[in-house]
Amino acid sequence: MRPMRNMERRQVTEGKILLAHGSGGGLTHQLVREVFSKHLANPWLDAQEDAAVWQAPHACGRFALTTDSYVVQPLFFPGGDIGKLAVCGTVNDLAMVGAQALYLTAGFILEEGLPVDALERIVCSMAKTAEEAGVQVIAGDTKVVDHGSADQLFINTAGIGTVAPDVHISAGNAQPGDGILLSGPIGLHGMAIMCEREGLGFTWPLQSDCAPLNGLVCTMLAVDTHIHCLRDPTRGGLATTLCELATQSKIQMEIEESSIAIPAGVSAACEMLGLDPLYVANEGILVAIVPPELEASMLASMHAHPLGRNAALIGRVTSSDHARVVLHTTLGARRLLQVLAGEQLPRIC
Amino acid sequence: MRPMRNMERRQVTEGKILLAHGSGGGLTHQLVREVFSKHLANPWLDAQEDAAVWQAPHACGRFALTTDSYVVQPLFFPGGDIGKLAVCGTVNDLAMVGAQALYLTAGFILEEGLPVDALERIVCSMAKTAEEAGVQVIAGDTKVVDHGSADQLFINTAGIGTVAPDVHISAGNAQPGDGILLSGPIGLHGMAIMCEREGLGFTWPLQSDCAPLNGLVCTMLAVDTHIHCLRDPTRGGLATTLCELATQSKIQMEIEESSIAIPAGVSAACEMLGLDPLYVANEGILVAIVPPELEASMLASMHAHPLGRNAALIGRVTSSDHARVVLHTTLGARRLLQVLAGEQLPRIC
Repeated sequence: MRPMRNMERRQVTEGKILLAHGSGGGLTHQLVREVFSKHLANPWLDAQEDAAVWQAPHACGRFALTTDSYVVQPLFFPGGDIGKLAVCGTVNDLAMVGAQALYLTAGFILEEGLPVDALERIVCSMAKTAEEAGVQVIAGDTKVVDHGSADQLFINTAGIGTVAPDVHISAGNAQPGDGILLSGPIGLHGMAIMCEREGLGFTWPLQSDCAPLNGLVCTMLAVDTHIHCLRDPTRGGLATTLCELATQSKIQMEIEESSIAIPAGVSAACEMLGLDPLYVANEGILVAIVPPELEASMLASMHAHPLGRNAALIGRVTSSDHARVVLHTTLGARRLLQVLAGEQLPRIC
Repeated sequence: MRPMRNMERRQVTEGKILLAHGSGGGLTHQLVREVFSKHLANPWLDAQEDAAVWQAPHACGRFALTTDSYVVQPLFFPGGDIGKLAVCGTVNDLAMVGAQALYLTAGFILEEGLPVDALERIVCSMAKTAEEAGVQVIAGDTKVVDHGSADQLFINTAGIGTVAPDVHISAGNAQPGDGILLSGPIGLHGMAIMCEREGLGFTWPLQSDCAPLNGLVCTMLAVDTHIHCLRDPTRGGLATTLCELATQSKIQMEIEESSIAIPAGVSAACEMLGLDPLYVANEGILVAIVPPELEASMLASMHAHPLGRNAALIGRVTSSDHARVVLHTTLGARRLLQVLAGEQLPRIC
């Protein structure tokens, strides 16, 4: 059996993904063992059951459940890769309802011919990011489709987290008078992907801001649990997120453009490509809407966290007469922001 | 605004999927509203939060978590479609650890140009199957990739379910003496897909057995919770599943080929295509390994359920000397079953 085993091993470790890696048979088991379990090992994955069984950590608690698929192109980009993104994105969606991520699932759709070492780098990156975020991948699935039926690799992650009893965060909770906080500079993820994809070189090297935000949210909730809204401005950018919050809370907000940090590289790249940075995707910042009495302490806690160092008050909820977002531009004009109508940057996440 | 609204509406309801439907902006919201929320509506989806928050139904209980991606081709086949499959497959993975499915997530990857009415038929089928299985889809995501970067539509579902305190089902639990039960005839899903894909017409019309098995498992657990193993023989077929159970439990099992129901149409199609029905995928049957004293009552409970009418004892765990599966063939020979090594039928689920 030895030579056969060695030959099979080479197919996985040095070779390319074959349709048979998705068959559910021997090569699937081998891929799971030599790539997925190798990096993501834990008692649940090792048990290879159809589902992972775990004990609820709190009595009678509330849970949060979310999912996202990731189709970003290219798979590797400055500041991250599709694996890091697939962990951060789902951890962050949980964090945006105030939930602490517990467990993730990961579903891979692989194109026949994908280099196994690319897959392994991605799985390794997922493992590193999961550790950083304090979460475990406890269930997974792999499908392989024929060459040309997918573009290299897609990942879906679903996540479950716990919500503390006194946390009630919702996009519908903003109230007139609330302060609107933004945790960091905008446009980095979208423009890093765009520059990498189009082979654009700028004087300013752009890195995606992709990061797990659960630590920052945990710090903020430790100050006070009465945060009204949290949302990470991913697809559609800051403008779309603010419009969603205004619509769901049925409130008007007024935003000061001058208080929104836009890195010089993002401005330059956006100008060259004719894009508005307010609509460019982010993967490591959040918008928080908080009662006015919490603004100062919340901002101070954010400034003390590495991912909130540049947090700023960018505006205020002014009334509940209209669901709309008014931007006071740096030139002194007023501009009504709308949700992104078309497609600015496809396959950004 | 009226004419614009009507034009947009036509894009969604009569048209094709555009890249902008995955932008996170206006067209994404519209697609969610007019296709996903329309059929899958519930308070969680309607709230449009980043994650769905729910109250745990049992104090200090155990939960099961699982995920699967679905890439079946064609999208519609006799007996089901990718939407029905995406609900059944995940509900069934939960059922195989004895968990009752509570909630699902659904992640869609759509190819630009997909007819919206095909998507709507699929979502509608998911809704119907979810209702049948008593489960709700409470979180979702949609990505769109450019034409040629995916094959029409892929779905990922993740599922969470509750496990009753006295249920401890695992692929590693089989014991010498245990009876091996099979709930129904084999090969229907795989051969229905194969015949549809290849345009083969047989005298016997083949329908996929795709069905949610949680009701059957619930009936079985009501008889006695001491079921040792449950597994649904999907990719890799019955033979691969039996080998996995033998390996994980480190036991030898002996199976009587004559007790395995193979529909005439499956036999004929397999013979014509040179396939072994023992390796063909199923989506609506299960293997149960139970202590000998439970065999009769368990079989009786299965026979009383529509999905277990043809349940049969197909063999027995004989020893713990070797991890292997011995098939006693109808011709009186002994054949050692192996896991599927290559790829028999790609994109079967």
